[in-house]
Amino acid sequence: MKTMGLTSLYLVTPKQFPDAEADTRATGAVDLLQQATVVASLAEALHGVTHAVALSARRRDLGPELEAPRQAASRLLAEAAEGEVALVFGNESTGLSNEEIQLCRAAVTIPTNPDFSSLNLCAAVHVLCYECRMAAYTASEVNQAAKTLVTPFSSPAATHDEVEGLLGHMSEIMIKTGFLNPEQPGRLLPKLRRLFSRARLEKDEVNILRGIFAATQENTRHAK
Amino acid sequence: MKTMGLTSLYLVTPKQFPDAEADTRATGAVDLLQQATVVASLAEALHGVTHAVALSARRRDLGPELEAPRQAASRLLAEAAEGEVALVFGNESTGLSNEEIQLCRAAVTIPTNPDFSSLNLCAAVHVLCYECRMAAYTASEVNQAAKTLVTPFSSPAATHDEVEGLLGHMSEIMIKTGFLNPEQPGRLLPKLRRLFSRARLEKDEVNILRGIFAATQENTRHAK
Repeated sequence: MKTMGLTSLYLVTPKQFPDAEADTRATGAVDLLQQATVVASLAEALHGVTHAVALSARRRDLGPELEAPRQAASRLLAEAAEGEVALVFGNESTGLSNEEIQLCRAAVTIPTNPDFSSLNLCAAVHVLCYECRMAAYTASEVNQAAKTLVTPFSSPAATHDEVEGLLGHMSEIMIKTGFLNPEQPGRLLPKLRRLFSRARLEKDEVNILRGIFAATQENTRHAK
Repeated sequence: MKTMGLTSLYLVTPKQFPDAEADTRATGAVDLLQQATVVASLAEALHGVTHAVALSARRRDLGPELEAPRQAASRLLAEAAEGEVALVFGNESTGLSNEEIQLCRAAVTIPTNPDFSSLNLCAAVHVLCYECRMAAYTASEVNQAAKTLVTPFSSPAATHDEVEGLLGHMSEIMIKTGFLNPEQPGRLLPKLRRLFSRARLEKDEVNILRGIFAATQENTRHAK
């Protein structure tokens, strides 16, 4: 919850709370447990909530239609503009009852491997919190969030003429060594050109490659 | 992994394997542990792999660009049409080293709450496996988007070991010509590695580049 930016936790009739083992497992997120609200029923937890989404492994009798996590999360965020919203999870062993699911306006299921569908509660909570965070970012913001982590280090892009200079240098070497026959050049140069455009070469990289070739030529000359 | 339909697990120098506690924790997924391949290095795990994505909490020096999980997963699925692909995770405490990340062609980060970003390994693996499954489900739409990221190969993708072979060849030449001092290698090899990952080298291109270097060496020998 906390890694994905969610903070408001309601616990319905917990077996034991507070609990030393829970605190230990929460490591840096004990504050969420300390601020958690303990209630006597799901109905009490949902008091004042305008849109609640229940996790369910399958469609329930009389329950709401099942949505995929991505749709459920984006709808939850849209509804959050109108009022309080909630994600509702059952316990690890028995999940939510039909009655509990019917208290919710929507139900969400995580599409799993049909041969092994037993997602544990932690993984399910994590996927739904993650989808809420992703829904909160717009597509461009997700990339922006990834980019804020970027340490700039790359060298500027090589210019057209720098790349051509490299290709000229390589073709000179290829001809000199007999690797390329200028009478029948074939597809060697077009292939290298295509590789370098795809790679969007940087200035540094052009310099390194030319450096290697220059060193080889130097070596050849010395040998002669 | 198993709930999301992934089955192929490689373990790099596990502290202990097989391990009774791991078996207990895996409950219904012990088969994945039993079928796991234990290898001595990440390079060995990546042998034959054409596209590897490393999880990283931040951009690393000389590492590949960071992508968001959704983008990384759809690209991984598109690349899976070309050859074997891999998701690469470090251990819980220290993650991947810069050197390990540089062995991968792409890097992915999970945008978390900046005030509490310490996602545990289990949660991170789960999110990425989940995104792979989602990318596979929405294949028709996602493929369309992902295709724009993939340059169609005219020759098959070079495998990890083929690219390493090229780098080994270049480093041998650079040392022989004095361009690279093996005592103070600096950033030359990481920079070349980064360039070749970004370029997504094809088999043909590896052969052409190795051909040029081999011809140069041949020439040097003749000259002598």
